[in-house]
Amino acid sequence: MSSPIKKLPMLSGRLEALGDGIFSVAMTILVIELELPKMISGGWAGFTAALQHTWPGLLCYMISFVVLGIMWFGHRMMFEFIARTNRYFIFLGVLFYMVVCLVPFSTRFLAQQVQWQSILVYGLNLSLCNLTLYAQWLYGVRRKSLMEIELNDEVRKEARTLFLLSPVVYGIAILISFWFPYISLIIYVITPVLYLLPNKLDKYMP
Amino acid sequence: MSSPIKKLPMLSGRLEALGDGIFSVAMTILVIELELPKMISGGWAGFTAALQHTWPGLLCYMISFVVLGIMWFGHRMMFEFIARTNRYFIFLGVLFYMVVCLVPFSTRFLAQQVQWQSILVYGLNLSLCNLTLYAQWLYGVRRKSLMEIELNDEVRKEARTLFLLSPVVYGIAILISFWFPYISLIIYVITPVLYLLPNKLDKYMP
Amino acid sequence: MSSPIKKLPMLSGRLEALGDGIFSVAMTILVIELELPKMISGGWAGFTAALQHTWPGLLCYMISFVVLGIMWFGHRMMFEFIARTNRYFIFLGVLFYMVVCLVPFSTRFLAQQVQWQSILVYGLNLSLCNLTLYAQWLYGVRRKSLMEIELNDEVRKEARTLFLLSPVVYGIAILISFWFPYISLIIYVITPVLYLLPNKLDKYMP
Amino acid sequence: MSSPIKKLPMLSGRLEALGDGIFSVAMTILVIELELPKMISGGWAGFTAALQHTWPGLLCYMISFVVLGIMWFGHRMMFEFIARTNRYFIFLGVLFYMVVCLVPFSTRFLAQQVQWQSILVYGLNLSLCNLTLYAQWLYGVRRKSLMEIELNDEVRKEARTLFLLSPVVYGIAILISFWFPYISLIIYVITPVLYLLPNKLDKYMP
Repeated sequence: MSSPIKKLPMLSGRLEALGDGIFSVAMTILVIELELPKMISGGWAGFTAALQHTWPGLLCYMISFVVLGIMWFGHRMMFEFIARTNRYFIFLGVLFYMVVCLVPFSTRFLAQQVQWQSILVYGLNLSLCNLTLYAQWLYGVRRKSLMEIELNDEVRKEARTLFLLSPVVYGIAILISFWFPYISLIIYVITPVLYLLPNKLDKYMP
Repeated sequence: MSSPIKKLPMLSGRLEALGDGIFSVAMTILVIELELPKMISGGWAGFTAALQHTWPGLLCYMISFVVLGIMWFGHRMMFEFIARTNRYFIFLGVLFYMVVCLVPFSTRFLAQQVQWQSILVYGLNLSLCNLTLYAQWLYGVRRKSLMEIELNDEVRKEARTLFLLSPVVYGIAILISFWFPYISLIIYVITPVLYLLPNKLDKYMP
Repeated sequence: MSSPIKKLPMLSGRLEALGDGIFSVAMTILVIELELPKMISGGWAGFTAALQHTWPGLLCYMISFVVLGIMWFGHRMMFEFIARTNRYFIFLGVLFYMVVCLVPFSTRFLAQQVQWQSILVYGLNLSLCNLTLYAQWLYGVRRKSLMEIELNDEVRKEARTLFLLSPVVYGIAILISFWFPYISLIIYVITPVLYLLPNKLDKYMP
Repeated sequence: MSSPIKKLPMLSGRLEALGDGIFSVAMTILVIELELPKMISGGWAGFTAALQHTWPGLLCYMISFVVLGIMWFGHRMMFEFIARTNRYFIFLGVLFYMVVCLVPFSTRFLAQQVQWQSILVYGLNLSLCNLTLYAQWLYGVRRKSLMEIELNDEVRKEARTLFLLSPVVYGIAILISFWFPYISLIIYVITPVLYLLPNKLDKYMP
């Protein structure tokens, strides 16, 4: 029933399961922060007033949800290639999860008031998510013992582009925010859309 | 240990796991919103008064829980047929999860006060859940590369009926709510029961 | 890649995953309700005073956590025997999850004040958990198409005893609570211990 | 379709799934406790003041997150060796999960004020996590029927060192806290780093 140790399998399944749990909680927690529309007067007037009050929070909720969805997708894609883990790979993973869990916090901060400080915190947080995930990816794909499917140069380059795209864009948004914070907000709305455009990885998918 | 890429497997397992996580958090979060019965006086009088105060919240909790259970079931059934994913299928999935996560929010709104505004928000939210899931289903079953088991016409039609049934009924409930919001509430209570009646998919189940 | 439908597999894996998610959230949510010890004065005096204030909440937290752990165990054991599901089995499962999710709510109510009303709500909730799980079990084991491993009479009887033990004990606790609510609380503390004693199912375990 | 019982498989998968759920919720819940930076005045002055106010909470969040990550890693490693469970093993697991779920609570207590009382509660909680996990490990590895891969003496000793390291260090931190609570806090920051150093288990990993 049991055999002496040589190498442990260290399959990535449980790290993925922890990630799915963390993403699903972080995504759902966003909604707890949403303030209920307070209806001061009845009828359409009161309703539209309440909606106007809820709107910024709802928008930030939607941006963060889609961004987290895209990050989850990137994380999920990584494990198409990587099937085994080791201690350092897992610690990089915990680091990634740590900054992911802060997203509901920075979202709340952004929803409270759109100004350069909240744009900075939010953009920094999202950039750190991408960068820690990229670090985990770079660590993983350089170790053949962890990989299931070998990369080719096209995938390698496209992955780099996708990982670094949003930190660069968010950096620009942060710079702009010192003068026009609402333009930065528009950039935050548009960025996820860039990830929906066709890319070079699509042809490897069923 | 590794082989060059041709097509990635892109199995649906992790998307399902994310969904199970999101549904379980959304369902459990409903209970955080529940107000504790405040017992002003002791004995049966105080207890029944407290129950009467908790009752609307508890009812809304139960409706939403059962509705989310039915949606989870539909989502789960989809993956009896679909076994692989691609980027667009997953993005439709994230959209579905986004509206699912809003259900605790609209439930709280409905529990606060039963009036046409809250009936509208709640019915719209639940309808969007069904419609985004239906969009994902339509996208998936039109791509043979994603499917595990081929559909026949009976399943296709019955799925359509089940996906569109509640948006239609909720649309009627919203219309009625401008005059009789409590009748709309009764419709919201009855709708889930429709999904418990025998249907044409039952014969394919063990 | 795809084959025409005859019978869908309807494996129980996702229902179990939803359950694991719901139990883990319900168990962890218990801790959100815990009030922080407020330290009015420093030193040991202030600390023990704070502990005394936190103690009832912490005790209720521990009881509920262990009880949920035992229910999770029963739920998990059920799926040693049952490997496939159908629509009715899943709806019974959703019902079970619904009452499980209410446990943090009744725990909060009990922690607030130990009196017959809270003993009643708490005991009723836990009994409903056991009874709905038992209903699901009875439904499942009567359908050979859902089962993986056939039951023998010993397992059948022992399962019935374990499912009905706590509703009976909780019923007694509720009766007693009209006179001595703290004795009922002691019964709630002791009941989980009964489930730790050796039983007739142990010999089937590795 | 079904066969009479001899021994149930009792695979560890669902206990691991419950654990992944509990860890992911406990880790994400930490962030709910984080207070939003309150910006009294605008510009850099107000921002740095707000950051200074948020800093202690953020630091405690990061310590707890990394510590929970390390515990999750230990828990995950245990199941490289153990593949089957029984009732007692699972009950030890529930005990472990119970103290893990208290970590957000003690973190909140620590973040509120750094003094010997909060250092004591926090260190005690983390030590109990390690000790209950160690108890589960000891129970498991002494039963061949539960194991997948046999231990050798090196693994056995290194596991003991890793399980007992932090309770010993935390014990020292608690002692010191009666005089210098901030030194204890520094010890809490440093301890996780010890677990990042290379150890004797690394050579068994891919």
